[in-house]
Amino acid sequence: MNGAQALIRTLVGCGVDVCFTNPGTSEMQFVAALDEVPAMRAVLGLFEGVATGAADGFGRMAERPAATLLHLGPGLGNGIANLHNARRARTPVVNVVGDHAVTHLAYDPPLASDIASLARPVSRWYRSATTPEGLAADAADAVAAAYGPPSGVATLVVPADLTWSEAGGPAAARPRPSPRPVGEEAVTGAAKALRSGEPVALLLGGAAMRRPGIDAAGRVAQATGARLLAETFPARHERGAGIPAPERLAYLAEFAMAQLAGTRHLVLAGATAPVSAFAYPNLPGDLVPEGCEVHTLADPAEGEDAVGALRALAETLGAGSGAAPGPPPGRPVPPTGALDARAVAEAVGALLPEDAIVSDEGNTEGIFVSGATAGAPPHDWLCLTGAAIGQGMPVALGAAVACPGRRVLSLQADGSAMYTLQSLWTQAREGLDVTTVVLANRSYGILELELSRVGAAAGGPRARRMLRIDDPELDFAALAAGMGVPSSRARTAEEFSEQLARALATPGPSVVEAVLV
Amino acid sequence: MNGAQALIRTLVGCGVDVCFTNPGTSEMQFVAALDEVPAMRAVLGLFEGVATGAADGFGRMAERPAATLLHLGPGLGNGIANLHNARRARTPVVNVVGDHAVTHLAYDPPLASDIASLARPVSRWYRSATTPEGLAADAADAVAAAYGPPSGVATLVVPADLTWSEAGGPAAARPRPSPRPVGEEAVTGAAKALRSGEPVALLLGGAAMRRPGIDAAGRVAQATGARLLAETFPARHERGAGIPAPERLAYLAEFAMAQLAGTRHLVLAGATAPVSAFAYPNLPGDLVPEGCEVHTLADPAEGEDAVGALRALAETLGAGSGAAPGPPPGRPVPPTGALDARAVAEAVGALLPEDAIVSDEGNTEGIFVSGATAGAPPHDWLCLTGAAIGQGMPVALGAAVACPGRRVLSLQADGSAMYTLQSLWTQAREGLDVTTVVLANRSYGILELELSRVGAAAGGPRARRMLRIDDPELDFAALAAGMGVPSSRARTAEEFSEQLARALATPGPSVVEAVLV
Repeated sequence: MNGAQALIRTLVGCGVDVCFTNPGTSEMQFVAALDEVPAMRAVLGLFEGVATGAADGFGRMAERPAATLLHLGPGLGNGIANLHNARRARTPVVNVVGDHAVTHLAYDPPLASDIASLARPVSRWYRSATTPEGLAADAADAVAAAYGPPSGVATLVVPADLTWSEAGGPAAARPRPSPRPVGEEAVTGAAKALRSGEPVALLLGGAAMRRPGIDAAGRVAQATGARLLAETFPARHERGAGIPAPERLAYLAEFAMAQLAGTRHLVLAGATAPVSAFAYPNLPGDLVPEGCEVHTLADPAEGEDAVGALRALAETLGAGSGAAPGPPPGRPVPPTGALDARAVAEAVGALLPEDAIVSDEGNTEGIFVSGATAGAPPHDWLCLTGAAIGQGMPVALGAAVACPGRRVLSLQADGSAMYTLQSLWTQAREGLDVTTVVLANRSYGILELELSRVGAAAGGPRARRMLRIDDPELDFAALAAGMGVPSSRARTAEEFSEQLARALATPGPSVVEAVLV
Repeated sequence: MNGAQALIRTLVGCGVDVCFTNPGTSEMQFVAALDEVPAMRAVLGLFEGVATGAADGFGRMAERPAATLLHLGPGLGNGIANLHNARRARTPVVNVVGDHAVTHLAYDPPLASDIASLARPVSRWYRSATTPEGLAADAADAVAAAYGPPSGVATLVVPADLTWSEAGGPAAARPRPSPRPVGEEAVTGAAKALRSGEPVALLLGGAAMRRPGIDAAGRVAQATGARLLAETFPARHERGAGIPAPERLAYLAEFAMAQLAGTRHLVLAGATAPVSAFAYPNLPGDLVPEGCEVHTLADPAEGEDAVGALRALAETLGAGSGAAPGPPPGRPVPPTGALDARAVAEAVGALLPEDAIVSDEGNTEGIFVSGATAGAPPHDWLCLTGAAIGQGMPVALGAAVACPGRRVLSLQADGSAMYTLQSLWTQAREGLDVTTVVLANRSYGILELELSRVGAAAGGPRARRMLRIDDPELDFAALAAGMGVPSSRARTAEEFSEQLARALATPGPSVVEAVLV
């Protein structure tokens, strides 16, 4: 058995049976071995950012890592932005990067570069394999490192000569540890704050945004009157009618400060302390209000068990075991008239299928969708965790691979859509049930806002031209068709509702361009 | 004057007056300052790989650096593959990367990452600015570092707070040193080899691929009988009727070995010693034949003056000062019948305008174009220097910005085209005279070849599916139209010739999809 086969068999044996890839010459042994190990499903992307973002989306929904397969330093480079998002989401990913044969690096061939330096900023574990006999064990270690705790991106670099050499057999899966239990003092400290009678907010994040964590947190809030908040960009948020609904902190520091004002105790459960996404000349970076004490119940950076900690906290507080209340079922009235951000939100709220998965890169024009779907049937919501745009469409792809039978709604801002638009082709190739809504306001709307907020002058015509993408106009219906995805364009609320309903009911991918100008 | 203005004014004062960008929040001061310094032309790309590739193309043709403006680590990540190509091309580029305000990094906000680690593998110079007063000097140093010698990518990281703080005025341009003269012994050593009577090949690369270097090398070859060879992927090759024509080394090691067989002395002028692009189980990595002595006349890694060295060599050898012969003027007969790689090449050879710039990422299907244009009117040829695909279309864009009035022909393989296809939008926005020919064979043709060469089994259906991009079929005419670029599709040689002729004669960009299956 050569190294490539040992590698793939080990991955499959460890439960990693999907590989998102754009391979090159140094990965050809891996590709050739796919026919020997049919249990590994290989999904081709036309660009590495598609592959890494899809691995992120898959990991969030499947709760186990997918592998990537990238071509040397430049292929890794193309995947870095979405590995950054995966790192921030703490998604388990086994990031496999092919390299030149070890002896060949001495010649400094054209594609050689410092892969370690490129990979380390996005990897919580990094190893470059050195022997064919050790490659299977390296792969098993990579899977274990991806699971953690804490979970994250594990990068394994595989020199080509190891893949074509005799390598023995596959390695066994490593034992998979549970999340780290939190210390008793963390629970008692939080309980004391919650009993203090002072204003307390419970800030949820990470694993606490899934149903078991939210339910426990809901009981704590119900028993103590604490407010339930959530991090700005959760990796995966289970929400909808009947599920306790923490209020997500706003992206803009001013709004988050208003949400936190008056809080005397902030209890962190799977979330880190709130900070501003960017610095501004006249705003603080640390958003914890003055005089507010921060209590870390479960630290996600340490892989601590936020769900277990919330359950222990509920028990300590005698918060019972019944279900805490969530929003009542309810959908907006289907919108009519002009198509704007609010009409898009109402149409989505009216139509979102039960058990849907929403990949949210709607940015400025998507701002009302979360509110409009609060009473929709239960669904999952996946956010732009690392704020590196170009994540939404690949994450939708990966989520669809992870969850056949569930409808994925990809809410996509037009500027961000152009980063990893190639995702559509893979959605078509794999026949995935992804409905993409492109919110086309023909601008980098968030930057038009930010231009004024950073203290810059309002911006003259040359500055504003850098933030407008309307010249020429992008035709997303044509772009989707060019990649084999059925598409349509909506200019009124009625058109949008009708096209969205049809797209959601049609097997396979489709694109609805919502023209908002 | 704030830091952003001081930065831009310094760049302009140093001759850097084009900036290829996709900015974000941390770059808003730079964007706002564009209206204050109209001498700086900002060109927006919809993806950072477009911006960095365009800066490469601009630098190759303008012989001075363009700036980039990228958004933090993830924006840099998206630009890394084409910075890798620029590094291999030794193109001067001032790579400006915005960063969080210095004080804000302590909060580890979502977009924070280790920019230095990401940047260093593609940068021959790296600095993160630390004070607003020093920012202008940092910019002047970055420009000087980009020029070298040796020239290359100079990365300057600019924390946002420096751009909004008072910064004094711009800094003066640094003196620009000439290329390093080579030592006398390098010239006499090469001359001795050339007089030895044994088989000698002169291998040209880098600056020696421009007219003055080629002319001097041609005289040397004429006087001594030496063979003229060239590196596989020159950054910029001036060629065509009447210009001495070195034979480029083949990409595939077997062919390059055949070209080099029998050579007893290899004189390197601006090129490095030939190596195989990849390692293979049964092929050498070092392609210098056994028993062949290598003489370094001018080392590009040291910024040595290959042109001056070739002139000195010609003088030492008494090689005269007249023009050495090049291929006679001649064009292929326009092709008829089926459209294949040869017909594409003949049509391009028949139609290539004088003084054209060819950006060549034609890969497998483009293999005959170089031969078919050998006798075409003089033109420039830009190659995939670092072998990281997705470079051709942005390089064409940058070359067109550098050389208004010259027609750019972008020869583009279909698989590679999908990497940085967003280049088309910027070509339309800026009204650039770029004619793109997409060579659509619906596969990663080079990998189909490589799959067998690495010693892997021929590859079963699952492996082969990773190398085919025909399901679904990409419609490049639709994709181009979606980005505002006129397009057409050719299925016969006659259709292709007609569409190419029309596209070359039409101002602004257009796309011709050559359907080769």
